[in-house]
Amino acid sequence: MERIKPRTLSGFMELLPAQQQQMERVMDILRTTYSRYGFTPLDTPIIEASEILLAKGGGETEKQIYRFSKGDSDLSLRFDLTVPLAKYVALHYNELAFPFRRFQIGKVYRGERAQRGRFREFYQADIDVIGDGELDIMNDAEIPAIIYDVFSAMGLKRFQIRINNRRVLNGFYSMLGLTEQSGEIMRTVDKIEKIGSDMVRAILVDDVKLTGEQADEILKFIAITGTNDEVLAALKGYCGRDAMFDQGYEELSTVIKYLGGFGVAQENFKVDLTIARGLDYYTGTVYETALLDYPQIGSVCSGGRYDNLAEYYTDRKLPGVGISIGVTRLFYVLGEQGLLNDALNTAPADVLLLPMTEDLSFAVSLATKLRERGLRAQLYTENKKFKAKMNYADKTKIPYVLFLGEDEVASGVVTCKDMTTGEQTKGAPDEIIARIYAAIREKNAQKVIVEK
Amino acid sequence: MERIKPRTLSGFMELLPAQQQQMERVMDILRTTYSRYGFTPLDTPIIEASEILLAKGGGETEKQIYRFSKGDSDLSLRFDLTVPLAKYVALHYNELAFPFRRFQIGKVYRGERAQRGRFREFYQADIDVIGDGELDIMNDAEIPAIIYDVFSAMGLKRFQIRINNRRVLNGFYSMLGLTEQSGEIMRTVDKIEKIGSDMVRAILVDDVKLTGEQADEILKFIAITGTNDEVLAALKGYCGRDAMFDQGYEELSTVIKYLGGFGVAQENFKVDLTIARGLDYYTGTVYETALLDYPQIGSVCSGGRYDNLAEYYTDRKLPGVGISIGVTRLFYVLGEQGLLNDALNTAPADVLLLPMTEDLSFAVSLATKLRERGLRAQLYTENKKFKAKMNYADKTKIPYVLFLGEDEVASGVVTCKDMTTGEQTKGAPDEIIARIYAAIREKNAQKVIVEK
Repeated sequence: MERIKPRTLSGFMELLPAQQQQMERVMDILRTTYSRYGFTPLDTPIIEASEILLAKGGGETEKQIYRFSKGDSDLSLRFDLTVPLAKYVALHYNELAFPFRRFQIGKVYRGERAQRGRFREFYQADIDVIGDGELDIMNDAEIPAIIYDVFSAMGLKRFQIRINNRRVLNGFYSMLGLTEQSGEIMRTVDKIEKIGSDMVRAILVDDVKLTGEQADEILKFIAITGTNDEVLAALKGYCGRDAMFDQGYEELSTVIKYLGGFGVAQENFKVDLTIARGLDYYTGTVYETALLDYPQIGSVCSGGRYDNLAEYYTDRKLPGVGISIGVTRLFYVLGEQGLLNDALNTAPADVLLLPMTEDLSFAVSLATKLRERGLRAQLYTENKKFKAKMNYADKTKIPYVLFLGEDEVASGVVTCKDMTTGEQTKGAPDEIIARIYAAIREKNAQKVIVEK
Repeated sequence: MERIKPRTLSGFMELLPAQQQQMERVMDILRTTYSRYGFTPLDTPIIEASEILLAKGGGETEKQIYRFSKGDSDLSLRFDLTVPLAKYVALHYNELAFPFRRFQIGKVYRGERAQRGRFREFYQADIDVIGDGELDIMNDAEIPAIIYDVFSAMGLKRFQIRINNRRVLNGFYSMLGLTEQSGEIMRTVDKIEKIGSDMVRAILVDDVKLTGEQADEILKFIAITGTNDEVLAALKGYCGRDAMFDQGYEELSTVIKYLGGFGVAQENFKVDLTIARGLDYYTGTVYETALLDYPQIGSVCSGGRYDNLAEYYTDRKLPGVGISIGVTRLFYVLGEQGLLNDALNTAPADVLLLPMTEDLSFAVSLATKLRERGLRAQLYTENKKFKAKMNYADKTKIPYVLFLGEDEVASGVVTCKDMTTGEQTKGAPDEIIARIYAAIREKNAQKVIVEK
């Protein structure tokens, strides 16, 4: 028979078993944390009608989209989870209760040029709170707390959630009489970390046609730094001149005030006036999240407040606030930086049972007992040499091996080898099971990320 | 702005929040149970090169496949999880330990004609054990035990795993000198439940050109019924005449012998000589699973033993045994039959906090406490009338509501309303949390399926 060379498409992540176990841990943390905050899981189709996905139309997205025909249908693979959410909420509006809080973890598709660390199929893990007509600012304060919990549960410490408010920016530009140019200004200012403030000033003056004075005012404004209290105090100095600015200031203050109460550590969040997010979509609070030791990676979790989730599908005003983690890219980056914990229990099983008797009844019932106790148990019955069996345990990193020989089965005793220490002990099954259970519990308390 | 009518493609399941929670419970059970048996999770791309997916080529599959071009690439969406597994094992052979035990729960795509209860995007939940060169028969005995655990954990009782062995059938046909026709015979016999034995006999004689004697021998053989012991005893009578038959008989006996040991109840499995599975792919043990009260639904979980997982990609002999649950269809059918448990906790949160104070610090810290205890807590801060807030709790079916008024906050007390009973109680936060925790634990012990 002619063989076809097996391969996986480039830009598509396919993990080996141990890495996949690490990824599963990440997914578990996302699901659990999102659920704890009262977000309900959703799962929408990966394929949608093209007219739905491209309702907004145009731009980079349309070029990258996987679009094709099947029969008479013009179909596309979703490129994010926001557009499907908008469709979902517009379609099922009458059956939902608002504020509608959903999380979705799913694959999305973008036919980007293949390059290292860029994926064409990747997971996004999104949360959004959608209001019917209006939505309280406290929701904006809660979102960073959720991100903090997610990253903390993973074991990440050196990260910073950066928060700003578009109304503060728009209000400020309005004070300068630059409302028209504010989009262009924000896109320029957004690049300050990459290109530096001199270059930003040059672009503002040469390309955006601001006066030198206006450019300096802007640079002075976005240079406001310090503790959160200091930044808010400096912003307060601008209050009373523009209604939009004042509203933005109030919102930002509220978000910052309650963040501590949600248990977010002071070093993990910061008002940052340079954050604007490129998308015109956002209208109030905006978030980015930086890994402090890896600034080159950019934001690993971004989002913000928007006024109209579903304006392409419905007349209803559906404001929302949400955030998205690019899980596949984050996982890739963590791996590249050596931050994934090798000591994590990534074996397919906690216990390998090696029966050495003709009749397997004892082994089968012991395996059942281990599983009932919540342990992952594998019965190994292949006809191999002892050495091959131990190699299997080694290669898969299964932490405990139970030997079940004739004498042992007869006397109701098992021998347990701890594969980490090499230590071998004998005991009654219940005693051994209790010991393994305690050890595995401790092992599983390991975090998936270990910072150097 | 012109609106586009929101819609979801037909043949694509999109659940409302409460149903999705039920589906999540099903997914949880699958993941947990598969893991307990030492299967490692895999996640392969949904898109593969068409040459990979269609290596086997031909047939119904090729017509149904979602195939398209992107740039120079000829791409397809996977139509099952077996072909991607074959590719994975062939590609990563050197990095895997054998037997390789993996589970995968993922979406697959088939462009079937749209009709009620047929899906074009659906989840499969597969387990497979792949050997390197050979694979012990005990693996075949373990597979039904896993299915039994999965269905039992869901709350299903009236199901039956039906087991046969293709070697028993092929050996029997060889005894009759009908090896050439065995494929055709099995496909005919496979229809016996649908068309009855008279029709089967007619087809065997008229179309397959057997003698009346041969047809009667076959019908007599597949009519062997009774307890598992009785069927095995009847089969034993045929032993000694054909080596393949004898091997099949040994395998089937071993599988049946150990199934009880794995904890599978006698009424939930049965040797059934009519089961052959249409696919030529299977060579030994075959499984189907019937819902006893809904025979019209057909098998909800099928699989078996095969000799060569990846013959299209590698020269290596990789025998395996596996089974697949069509989760989306099963879930749909359970819903249609009214078997999904309405009493399941499907709310987005366990507790809704209603602060009635200006300052929200107390509410925020109480919500954090609830979450730390593992409860799902939602802070409701929208500016709505009291009645609208209670309607929200009603509509989302959140089981407990906490009222946090000025007096209560001042005296460190909370009022808790049990939304099921309507009962209202006051107490210290820790006391209330402990009570809710115990009640939610009990609520969550509910099964997702309740048979009538």
